[in-house]
Amino acid sequence: MPANSFGQRFVITTFGESHGPALGVVIDGCPANILFDHNLLDQWMARRRPGASAIVSGRNEEDRVEILSGVFEGKTLGTPIAMMVRNKDARSEDYADIKINPRAGHADDVWHDKFGHVDHRGGGRASGRETVARVMAGAVAHMVARELCPEISIHGRATNIGPLNLPAEQDALEQFLMAAKVDGKSYGGIVEVRMEGVPRGLGEPVFHKFKSDLACAVMSIGATCSFEIGAGFGAATAEGTIFHRQAGETQYGGIRGGITTGEPIVFRVAFKPPASVLDVAKKGRHDPCIIPRAIPVVEAMAWLVLADHLLLGKK
Amino acid sequence: MPANSFGQRFVITTFGESHGPALGVVIDGCPANILFDHNLLDQWMARRRPGASAIVSGRNEEDRVEILSGVFEGKTLGTPIAMMVRNKDARSEDYADIKINPRAGHADDVWHDKFGHVDHRGGGRASGRETVARVMAGAVAHMVARELCPEISIHGRATNIGPLNLPAEQDALEQFLMAAKVDGKSYGGIVEVRMEGVPRGLGEPVFHKFKSDLACAVMSIGATCSFEIGAGFGAATAEGTIFHRQAGETQYGGIRGGITTGEPIVFRVAFKPPASVLDVAKKGRHDPCIIPRAIPVVEAMAWLVLADHLLLGKK
Amino acid sequence: MPANSFGQRFVITTFGESHGPALGVVIDGCPANILFDHNLLDQWMARRRPGASAIVSGRNEEDRVEILSGVFEGKTLGTPIAMMVRNKDARSEDYADIKINPRAGHADDVWHDKFGHVDHRGGGRASGRETVARVMAGAVAHMVARELCPEISIHGRATNIGPLNLPAEQDALEQFLMAAKVDGKSYGGIVEVRMEGVPRGLGEPVFHKFKSDLACAVMSIGATCSFEIGAGFGAATAEGTIFHRQAGETQYGGIRGGITTGEPIVFRVAFKPPASVLDVAKKGRHDPCIIPRAIPVVEAMAWLVLADHLLLGKK
Amino acid sequence: MPANSFGQRFVITTFGESHGPALGVVIDGCPANILFDHNLLDQWMARRRPGASAIVSGRNEEDRVEILSGVFEGKTLGTPIAMMVRNKDARSEDYADIKINPRAGHADDVWHDKFGHVDHRGGGRASGRETVARVMAGAVAHMVARELCPEISIHGRATNIGPLNLPAEQDALEQFLMAAKVDGKSYGGIVEVRMEGVPRGLGEPVFHKFKSDLACAVMSIGATCSFEIGAGFGAATAEGTIFHRQAGETQYGGIRGGITTGEPIVFRVAFKPPASVLDVAKKGRHDPCIIPRAIPVVEAMAWLVLADHLLLGKK
Repeated sequence: MPANSFGQRFVITTFGESHGPALGVVIDGCPANILFDHNLLDQWMARRRPGASAIVSGRNEEDRVEILSGVFEGKTLGTPIAMMVRNKDARSEDYADIKINPRAGHADDVWHDKFGHVDHRGGGRASGRETVARVMAGAVAHMVARELCPEISIHGRATNIGPLNLPAEQDALEQFLMAAKVDGKSYGGIVEVRMEGVPRGLGEPVFHKFKSDLACAVMSIGATCSFEIGAGFGAATAEGTIFHRQAGETQYGGIRGGITTGEPIVFRVAFKPPASVLDVAKKGRHDPCIIPRAIPVVEAMAWLVLADHLLLGKK
Repeated sequence: MPANSFGQRFVITTFGESHGPALGVVIDGCPANILFDHNLLDQWMARRRPGASAIVSGRNEEDRVEILSGVFEGKTLGTPIAMMVRNKDARSEDYADIKINPRAGHADDVWHDKFGHVDHRGGGRASGRETVARVMAGAVAHMVARELCPEISIHGRATNIGPLNLPAEQDALEQFLMAAKVDGKSYGGIVEVRMEGVPRGLGEPVFHKFKSDLACAVMSIGATCSFEIGAGFGAATAEGTIFHRQAGETQYGGIRGGITTGEPIVFRVAFKPPASVLDVAKKGRHDPCIIPRAIPVVEAMAWLVLADHLLLGKK
Repeated sequence: MPANSFGQRFVITTFGESHGPALGVVIDGCPANILFDHNLLDQWMARRRPGASAIVSGRNEEDRVEILSGVFEGKTLGTPIAMMVRNKDARSEDYADIKINPRAGHADDVWHDKFGHVDHRGGGRASGRETVARVMAGAVAHMVARELCPEISIHGRATNIGPLNLPAEQDALEQFLMAAKVDGKSYGGIVEVRMEGVPRGLGEPVFHKFKSDLACAVMSIGATCSFEIGAGFGAATAEGTIFHRQAGETQYGGIRGGITTGEPIVFRVAFKPPASVLDVAKKGRHDPCIIPRAIPVVEAMAWLVLADHLLLGKK
Repeated sequence: MPANSFGQRFVITTFGESHGPALGVVIDGCPANILFDHNLLDQWMARRRPGASAIVSGRNEEDRVEILSGVFEGKTLGTPIAMMVRNKDARSEDYADIKINPRAGHADDVWHDKFGHVDHRGGGRASGRETVARVMAGAVAHMVARELCPEISIHGRATNIGPLNLPAEQDALEQFLMAAKVDGKSYGGIVEVRMEGVPRGLGEPVFHKFKSDLACAVMSIGATCSFEIGAGFGAATAEGTIFHRQAGETQYGGIRGGITTGEPIVFRVAFKPPASVLDVAKKGRHDPCIIPRAIPVVEAMAWLVLADHLLLGKK
């Protein structure tokens, strides 16, 4: 069943296994004559890439993006934009024993049952590496949305990394993660995203409410387990006359009746701790916390939802 | 933009304004030869209907379902199933002044800006009455899923009604709601849904993960503001080696890598307090808490996601 | 599998069996604030209806359209427009023996094999009566396209009825059909449609070329067996330097590279002779030629394609 | 607007401009564990490639296919299959003056109006080179359909090349084309396709009739101007009692009520003469007849429709 596409007007289709030849995306529905900003794309890719610090996973993902179509003389053509990165440093030998021993916390076993086989090279499509295609696409969505609405900005930040509330002192965070790495521990966390300058009137009344498209988008990222907008779960305990008189971004998250109000949109998404900490194969190279890398992925999904709804336009 | 359909294989398209002639749904993709259980449909409609108690909204929604197509001699034909209910007790005069004064907490103003007009008869599509179509469709999804997998059950319950944790004593709850009615207060709450007997292997790897389709489905219901599955936001503070060794429904919510594991699926959804408490027009007839009526709607969406993925089938 | 929808932006979903309670359509994607012209709808329905003359089928299809949603105070709301007609004069007893004897030239047997049953009441969805939903939808597409581009017109005419080339003298045609009725003969024919005033630039480059969407639309009508645009099959024998220097509507049919040129679009569609002539059950009431009733159906499909592409708009 | 995808279950999305870096396709919905037959893919590519004879266009399209994803250890993974070919021998300088002078018979001018620019490098997406992606996809559809139904075969042949009826003597055809090349003439023609062994029951009742999906598929190929199935336009003049008693492939084309009957499916598609004969830039290198190269493209589209409907399956 086709299930690798997202969006209605700005439609992305992603492809690639974590240890296959390449990962990529085809964007169908990008308008013509949008300035294609290669620097912006590079910045997005750099933000997603595991950093150079001692904390992060040992895999070196250089990820030079190759544009295969849809861009000519620095502008989009209105034709499909295909982009890919090669998988260079695959180390699939690390994953050889997945064939025999499905990893705890991963989906190897359910995939095997579903597809009658498992691509034992590091999780195939279920790998975190799949997000590289989302970030490429998100970068282009950013270019489009920025051109249609220059005042829009989207910024994600971690509010929690495991038990640590943020902002913490920079040193405290680094020590926390370093200790986790050494001690063989891993943590999830919470990413909060603030979308500003989003025009009033985006979102459709029933099944493509702006909030439900956002929920769908971010809950499609691996390891997510919760989504809330505005007051979120806090709204469940509030009393109505008080709640609604305090209306505004804090309460409604910039969306009413499924439609953007023009106020800032604020949502939060929670991530589970990485299961790779349990992998013998990754011993000493496990990722103690995926949150830093998850932030650009969540932002990318928000840009994709935004570009899609900007193109859906006002009725 | 078409945005009134949900699903990929079991596709529903809903129609109808809260004060127009009728509300209904067309289901395209229902298999042939499914026993059409009119009693089950009636039970669903009865659960959604505002009850006969003194607490609930004064509007009497009898909602006799009329089957327009797709069912013959007690079985589905494999052709589109169209169903509708007439709007009888519309009292649209109550809403006449919305034309002039958009209601606080409702979407009247953003709809007006978006569509260049507003159906001032009670919110049009943005009304809670729109859920009647979801429940009709959910009842049919229930029939289909039950026939494909007789052991499946889906049960929702309120875990919170405003500040009240449930289960509380029945009297305490009734008194709480009665007082809210009298005092002109309203409350949201949290609905927890447990899906048992769901076969292993449902869900698609990337953009139609079972969890993201569930999130999309329930966050498309009006007044929802949060969704979590399994450990949810709690997972954000957990440590990985502990979290993943405690694996199971509590932690993963019955889904790994976006695919059902065969364990029970548990998710929660939060609702804001009803804004109708602020309506002068509804004075003395406001709904102090939508949770009791919301439970079957959330369940209906879960059945819809389930039927859709059962039909998508194993690869 | 869902297969009862047509269109990308102006999406119609049809429902109803020829002898079930009702036939109808839901239109999702119709813009708000379009004047809903009930007279125009009535004219469309009248053109499709079997006429009052002695020639046509005895079935009296009055077909009063009921608007269920999406229209308010004479205008479209931007919400789904649901419309239906009741089946009044069903005479399903006429079809009782289909249960035992599949009709020659009909699809009763293949449907039975496919769905595991057959709705023996006159062909179910495969009946010519299904076109009533297309005509209702086409009438609304007409309203939309007319408002977006007032200069557009679409006119179909028969160029052939069986062996008879048209225009023939009116008397000759009537005598021909009368004789066919009496003699138990039936004929197909060719409908030519001319679309004028269609703006330049409609159609998408690869899989939604304007010509392929037209072909898809008209070949989805029952009994069609051929489609050609512009020079059609005649182009196959032409020499290129001559053909392309005579460019224009005659040759290209108003479409180049899949995109409308602004010139008139001309296409032709052929229909098989009605198989109902073989039905013992219809003895004396068979339809000697479906072409007169087919013309508005073909036109309706052309309006649907046009409205869809007008809403897709320029890039 | 996204318009570069085709299919419902076996969904292809094509990308690439004729003179951009690469052309390719992503197939979403291919089942897992299908044997990936590289030899078959090569045979398809060889058939589409302009031959080595003196007659054909000078452009040398070697077109080595690179598999980017979805295939592992000789089998499909059930994940998206991405394939591409590099554009090597682009000679875009040949097309430099299109920027100033739109070519007669091509779509340069309408594309320019639509997209606000024109990719002046040989027609961009509107080039015949776009068909390379269809053929790659068709080869995989062939692998899938063959594995699901080994007895299926699809064979296309030219019945007409310009005024020449085929089969003609091989020498006569070669002389005809050679003369056309020398004399600066070009011809279209008719391709007839015969699908044998297609199981009974494929096709959906209303908008995805097997015939309308075929029409849609082949009319999306550039330069097509007509489609007919079974008796085609010939049915328009036939009398019904005679026509339907001669039922069978000749008459119905293997499809009744939109659904395959199990008999051979026979359809024909007409092509216009190539307009490139008018290009000064292509002087001496023009293609006198596209039919030989068109045959595998038409077949590829037939395999795609077939694979799609085989996966849609019986209800």
